[in-house]
Amino acid sequence: MAAPSTLSAGSVGSVETRYQDLPAPLHLDCGRELHQVRVAYETYGTLSPRRDNVILVCHALSGDAHAAGFATTPPAAGTRDGFAAEGRDGAAGKALGWWDGMIGPGKAFDTDRFFVISTNLIGGCRGTTGPSSIDPATGRPYGSDFPVVTVADMVRCQRAFLDVLGIERLAAVAGGSLGGMQALEWAVRFPDQVDAIVVIASTHALHPQGVAWNAIAREAIMRDPAWQGGHYYGTGQAPDAGMGVARMLGHITYLSAPALTDRFGRRLQFADDIRYTLGQPEFEVESYLQHQAGSFVRRFDANTYLYLSRALTYFDLAREHGDGSLVQALAGVSARTLLLAFSSDWLYPPAASIEIDEALRGLGKPAEFHLIEAPYGHDSFLLEEAQQIPIVRRFLAER
Amino acid sequence: MAAPSTLSAGSVGSVETRYQDLPAPLHLDCGRELHQVRVAYETYGTLSPRRDNVILVCHALSGDAHAAGFATTPPAAGTRDGFAAEGRDGAAGKALGWWDGMIGPGKAFDTDRFFVISTNLIGGCRGTTGPSSIDPATGRPYGSDFPVVTVADMVRCQRAFLDVLGIERLAAVAGGSLGGMQALEWAVRFPDQVDAIVVIASTHALHPQGVAWNAIAREAIMRDPAWQGGHYYGTGQAPDAGMGVARMLGHITYLSAPALTDRFGRRLQFADDIRYTLGQPEFEVESYLQHQAGSFVRRFDANTYLYLSRALTYFDLAREHGDGSLVQALAGVSARTLLLAFSSDWLYPPAASIEIDEALRGLGKPAEFHLIEAPYGHDSFLLEEAQQIPIVRRFLAER
Repeated sequence: MAAPSTLSAGSVGSVETRYQDLPAPLHLDCGRELHQVRVAYETYGTLSPRRDNVILVCHALSGDAHAAGFATTPPAAGTRDGFAAEGRDGAAGKALGWWDGMIGPGKAFDTDRFFVISTNLIGGCRGTTGPSSIDPATGRPYGSDFPVVTVADMVRCQRAFLDVLGIERLAAVAGGSLGGMQALEWAVRFPDQVDAIVVIASTHALHPQGVAWNAIAREAIMRDPAWQGGHYYGTGQAPDAGMGVARMLGHITYLSAPALTDRFGRRLQFADDIRYTLGQPEFEVESYLQHQAGSFVRRFDANTYLYLSRALTYFDLAREHGDGSLVQALAGVSARTLLLAFSSDWLYPPAASIEIDEALRGLGKPAEFHLIEAPYGHDSFLLEEAQQIPIVRRFLAER
Repeated sequence: MAAPSTLSAGSVGSVETRYQDLPAPLHLDCGRELHQVRVAYETYGTLSPRRDNVILVCHALSGDAHAAGFATTPPAAGTRDGFAAEGRDGAAGKALGWWDGMIGPGKAFDTDRFFVISTNLIGGCRGTTGPSSIDPATGRPYGSDFPVVTVADMVRCQRAFLDVLGIERLAAVAGGSLGGMQALEWAVRFPDQVDAIVVIASTHALHPQGVAWNAIAREAIMRDPAWQGGHYYGTGQAPDAGMGVARMLGHITYLSAPALTDRFGRRLQFADDIRYTLGQPEFEVESYLQHQAGSFVRRFDANTYLYLSRALTYFDLAREHGDGSLVQALAGVSARTLLLAFSSDWLYPPAASIEIDEALRGLGKPAEFHLIEAPYGHDSFLLEEAQQIPIVRRFLAER
């Protein structure tokens, strides 16, 4: 499909999300298995004849398969209406992928060279089987009967999906935040199948404050009566109020305090006048939060938020693979490892990346860590592309 | 009243909250006036014959008049049942005051020397007129028809109350957090009536991230259907679900990330085993948050939370008194000023106290700032008494 003339240089152009049914049930950490799993995905670039140029990019909590280019059709949503294809530019039908700045010809994940695959996670709400999908056993949406999934389950699902495509080895697995956790899990779980991992603004185990933020966001959703114990699909109600609070909370944890000061200060909405209202936004930052909450609930499913939030708090490489030792957990890794962290990221602080880097190098494995000075907090991994691109390009060129 | 033998040395002993009706309406910043205002208060120590030994202590968002000693009777609550007298020790009928470590014989605010007065703030829910009080115009609780109040209104209410007691001058006004804002407002608004202020873990204007946290907490309450537009009194429902979320959020902002790591780590509730549940607390920090939320909703009124939160985000000395200039706002201050801040406090970071200190000293006024190394975040002002006591004692002795 020809790229519209309005596209900037380096875009992968128009893309469509596709869907693949897995041929076998997916066995999960919790002991249950999921039947009739569907995976939503997109690809960018061209698969080499030897199938040795595949990069899997993994999305974070609120992402989807649409990582690059312009979406021409909205991705299939769950059973609830109203999950619009609203991406970074918000223009209906022209949504830009969530990592478009990093994926494309000449970019960090160079589609002139690599075949980049992006899938929606298991548990998601943007085309891959999740809590809003129909449970084949009942004919109704799973809701909160959907099994609790883990980062390992996400990776198992990606592994099964790649099997269908006939792709055995990955030149790289890359992602930020929850996506970085998946990259780490790939390197530990399938050491013979991953040449390199790119782990950005992530961790081997979320610190307790991060666990707490996630717990509070989930509480905000589950305490909303419209959540209805997780079975709100088809009732004409959804926990939008609680989801809005969860998103506001998340949003502030993604940004740094100085970034908020730079962007909003204490500016008021109304010509610098206090209005003495209890419920109306008066500060610009309050109005911004309302807007963020409103747009998020239109595009994202509350149950998926719960499941993915749970998965990322569970993730703990040392506990899962090393009997409590991070070094032991990483002992089998053979992938070259690139770790990036951002100076102002207090949700996924650089310290965790440094711990991984030190553990890997202590084991004699090829690893490198870069601390990037950037003011935007955790969101830097989506915003601070200029500093990431040369590092990632150089790292991937060294294979 | 004799102190029970179980009291530690330095306690003010058993105390009772008393009540005083103001003789005139209170004129508020919003342009409205409040009629039939009642103020709940406690006193500790003895008023000197010259009435020159009075220290007013001001409470923070979730405080009340019961600052020191053991409460023998629960303070009068609003119209909603169930606001138990649950203080620091949680023992019904024996609740310890919220600043007991700082107020008493030989303590920072030495009741052998000073007559310490503590009032519940206007807008409160612990005996002073607030949204849960009966509106004399309607015979029903105000609810969200209660006027929006400011820190200046709190100080006006305290001033009117002290007039009734025949107290003109204050040897000191002291408080932490929102309480420190009141101390600053006193020094600016009534410069001839305040000899000294003690401003702890506070600011001249909350930074935008703090504004955001407060806005999110208020949203959590107001989006709870049980809030009913603020008129939930007498309906048998209250926005406990939203209040719980607000309290959880607040609680994490009061603590530092390292303090959470030290106290909880990533420890699990269930013998170090993941249970794969969506809604149950599995990490110890999750269980702790649930407990905090549950105990808070039993003792505090949601509307009061909204009003006091609003007031502390509005507070802005430079805008209110200095046409945007902090130096100009402080130009008329004559009180000696003591500023304390805590190294790990990221909600009320030391930077704001430093700005006040520098502005005052630039104006040639007596001010001193101390940065206290303490790990507990904003809560340090309630927890780290050992380091505060000698500084405050020495400062107050210098008058």
